[in-house]
Amino acid sequence: MSRSIDLIADLGEGFGAWTMTEDDALTRIVTSANVACGFHAGDPSTIRDTVALCLDRGVAVGAHPSFPDLRGFGRRPIELPLPDLEADVLYQLGALDAFLRPHGRRLHHVTPHGSLGNMTAVREDYARAVARAVRAFDPQLTVAYQESWMTRAAEEEGLPVARIGFADRGYADDGTLVARSLPGAFVTDPGEVAARAVRMATEGVVTSVTGTPLPMSCDSILLHGDSPAAVSVATTVRQRLESEGVRVAAWSGHEIQSSALPAEGIAHE
Amino acid sequence: MSRSIDLIADLGEGFGAWTMTEDDALTRIVTSANVACGFHAGDPSTIRDTVALCLDRGVAVGAHPSFPDLRGFGRRPIELPLPDLEADVLYQLGALDAFLRPHGRRLHHVTPHGSLGNMTAVREDYARAVARAVRAFDPQLTVAYQESWMTRAAEEEGLPVARIGFADRGYADDGTLVARSLPGAFVTDPGEVAARAVRMATEGVVTSVTGTPLPMSCDSILLHGDSPAAVSVATTVRQRLESEGVRVAAWSGHEIQSSALPAEGIAHE
Amino acid sequence: MSRSIDLIADLGEGFGAWTMTEDDALTRIVTSANVACGFHAGDPSTIRDTVALCLDRGVAVGAHPSFPDLRGFGRRPIELPLPDLEADVLYQLGALDAFLRPHGRRLHHVTPHGSLGNMTAVREDYARAVARAVRAFDPQLTVAYQESWMTRAAEEEGLPVARIGFADRGYADDGTLVARSLPGAFVTDPGEVAARAVRMATEGVVTSVTGTPLPMSCDSILLHGDSPAAVSVATTVRQRLESEGVRVAAWSGHEIQSSALPAEGIAHE
Amino acid sequence: MSRSIDLIADLGEGFGAWTMTEDDALTRIVTSANVACGFHAGDPSTIRDTVALCLDRGVAVGAHPSFPDLRGFGRRPIELPLPDLEADVLYQLGALDAFLRPHGRRLHHVTPHGSLGNMTAVREDYARAVARAVRAFDPQLTVAYQESWMTRAAEEEGLPVARIGFADRGYADDGTLVARSLPGAFVTDPGEVAARAVRMATEGVVTSVTGTPLPMSCDSILLHGDSPAAVSVATTVRQRLESEGVRVAAWSGHEIQSSALPAEGIAHE
Repeated sequence: MSRSIDLIADLGEGFGAWTMTEDDALTRIVTSANVACGFHAGDPSTIRDTVALCLDRGVAVGAHPSFPDLRGFGRRPIELPLPDLEADVLYQLGALDAFLRPHGRRLHHVTPHGSLGNMTAVREDYARAVARAVRAFDPQLTVAYQESWMTRAAEEEGLPVARIGFADRGYADDGTLVARSLPGAFVTDPGEVAARAVRMATEGVVTSVTGTPLPMSCDSILLHGDSPAAVSVATTVRQRLESEGVRVAAWSGHEIQSSALPAEGIAHE
Repeated sequence: MSRSIDLIADLGEGFGAWTMTEDDALTRIVTSANVACGFHAGDPSTIRDTVALCLDRGVAVGAHPSFPDLRGFGRRPIELPLPDLEADVLYQLGALDAFLRPHGRRLHHVTPHGSLGNMTAVREDYARAVARAVRAFDPQLTVAYQESWMTRAAEEEGLPVARIGFADRGYADDGTLVARSLPGAFVTDPGEVAARAVRMATEGVVTSVTGTPLPMSCDSILLHGDSPAAVSVATTVRQRLESEGVRVAAWSGHEIQSSALPAEGIAHE
Repeated sequence: MSRSIDLIADLGEGFGAWTMTEDDALTRIVTSANVACGFHAGDPSTIRDTVALCLDRGVAVGAHPSFPDLRGFGRRPIELPLPDLEADVLYQLGALDAFLRPHGRRLHHVTPHGSLGNMTAVREDYARAVARAVRAFDPQLTVAYQESWMTRAAEEEGLPVARIGFADRGYADDGTLVARSLPGAFVTDPGEVAARAVRMATEGVVTSVTGTPLPMSCDSILLHGDSPAAVSVATTVRQRLESEGVRVAAWSGHEIQSSALPAEGIAHE
Repeated sequence: MSRSIDLIADLGEGFGAWTMTEDDALTRIVTSANVACGFHAGDPSTIRDTVALCLDRGVAVGAHPSFPDLRGFGRRPIELPLPDLEADVLYQLGALDAFLRPHGRRLHHVTPHGSLGNMTAVREDYARAVARAVRAFDPQLTVAYQESWMTRAAEEEGLPVARIGFADRGYADDGTLVARSLPGAFVTDPGEVAARAVRMATEGVVTSVTGTPLPMSCDSILLHGDSPAAVSVATTVRQRLESEGVRVAAWSGHEIQSSALPAEGIAHE
């Protein structure tokens, strides 16, 4: 299995005078980032600074497009016409990409944010709209998400796909995430999170809440950045991976793993 | 002097359920367009449709970036930090450009909108911030504006510059536009507007409100699209130009005229 | 049955430089208005002007609160936490009411707009959240809507309730509106719309698409303002009502009719 | 001189998922609050929670209306038509007031925020527009600001006026605040801030940066809430005032001091 893994975090989630995550610390740990594009967070100046910080630290910059929902931080499910959704995603990809151009760089990947992500996981129509927008922007651009309708639609559009796994979330036996309201939804012990990350990276396996080993081939492990302990957990995960001989690096096209999981219903909550 | 001239209009200035200009009719007349980018008008779906309509009609698509001012339609002067202004313009260029990519096309030019335009005309700091944003996006991208700090700053950044003239506005003897509140500010007779357009295109001259001929070298003539008579005036202008043997076409890089006007204070009101 | 009926229209649905309905003409015909409060349309200046116009014409001013959705004109279904919904409605009621205070007037009623309205019709949780917001603002304030969860929740909160009927929409035999995509959804002939209005006002009956007479007790008949023929249809309806001896006037508290319809699922589309 | 003083802070300056000030701690110290109304900060849910917290702690709730500038936190100067400004303020007053109504309370005062405040201090037209909006909402509502065009315009509209002083900012000999970029602009030592607050409250005097005693009659002392040391400075100020026998309480109408300062140009930065 993989001896190389990407560590990814959501960054640049401030807006105007407000900030959210500890981007300075996190960009010293992760190898790629989902950068807010202005619809749930991320005004243009925040985007510029986040992109510059990421590139300075060698962190690959991906887009984190969202529903237009500043008030709800992109966490509200919205029903909107598919042509509007497709246009919204295309708009955000272009807007973020503009800040990479002065650095001579391009977008590394696209990961739909929050409620948009959740809905692309379980709804074919939304997943296809997002995939069409990505292909319209750049047919070589990777879609990074957990195995779901989002990854299936991206593959059917001919897009490269990277899989994201969660080391700090519990999985049910069917490979879906345990709902946040149920026991076992979260893994909080830094050592346990790190151990899970190592097993995901080296064996392609995650243990479900019932103790069952599940195949979990992933190219990237998401580290949540919005908890007080985020930085210390992330530091522990990275150290453990490296001490186990795993190379921590953003994926490039040819390194993307193929998946063994069924393409159903695993939402990014 | 020039026997070729561009006709340009502001298009795509609706938002959501609202519309503003008669884009379907105007795209049959003009040869290039300033397309709203979402900050004063132009949601992503409107942008997509406007770009598609322009390209279908052979109209060159330029960006019309604005202050963030949906409520005031970008007509309100705003003091903002220059890094914010620069980032806002870059964001808008990328967002609009994303809708040209699926067509295999690129932005034709950039013309700052409304109050942003006015301020770049008379303020060096704003003009330079906009010019830096354009160069960061694409050093080959043309800035189109009336002779002012905006064109000077663009030239000093090494950007191609196109001059825009107004056939339906009065000019003072110093080459500035007559303020909208003063007599002579507007030329409303379609025949007179057309005659002025022809002279600007063929002789590079416009007659001031005192009857003085002024040098007015321009690459493009702006046709205002938001009056009830807009379409009929535009039709008359185009017919007269063509009947006088002037080629009506969007400029391309090598055709851009150099200017003889001083670079001071001619605001795009 | 009633020999007095209110005619109501959605007004003030512009934003900034954009306009939507012909408010000048419509305020000469209708007797009450649902005024946009800034979330789907209606910036503060638009609200001020709309309120002043209504009061000048003797039109009662009601609030038309919406989801926060300027882009989608409030027509997009949004899932949001109930405390947020309740706060959003309260905010809009206060904002609109502020423009009545200088006139020494108060809000006449509240009618949820667009998708918010549709969802309050069929979802108890949304209906109750809106009703709680109205009661928190003013326990004497009338909720005006078609018979549905919205009116039931309002009654259970002890609020006055007025029923709204549609003369230009088709009804199914169960009293619900025919979906817009089906045959019979719309009645477009002005004379037929007027005849239906008269029967609703005088007999409390509407004929369903199958020809069945349905009880349709209503205090107000909504006239859609956003079609080209809106003004002429509205004029015809008012003239016919008056020629039949029906008094056309905004309801006041004691005149509100009780309803005979079941409180299920009649959405305001 | 006064043996009673109000301590005031800007609260509720979060938006959606973002927070700004330590409202829980500050509401245990101050006696009145300027609450954001949604234009520079403060979504409806934030407003509801802030109002409830203030009332629970006995903190008087005032409105903090702003330019429409979420991106710039209301700190950007904007030129807008006076009728728009007046409407914007009225809208915000009504929106905030709606959250006091369920508690059976009314707005305690109005203090314009950020750049709007600064401009009302030095521009008669903006000051009068704000004063007109306040009077339209409630002729008994107090305007609280430092001595300037804002207070003069409020008085000329017949509104009650309260004066705000700054214990942590340097004053020039003419009674204006030292610009933030100059030496002496800030007083950071908690003991010194407290000593200044005591002298302002008990003697109506503040010492200028040149050591000159200035008359500084004020009803309220603003405590900045957005610095890391904000809570500890505020605690020190309150303790010192009380140990010196000063009653710390929100003003009520009859307690408002008259001012001895000239009404020119003291901006609230």
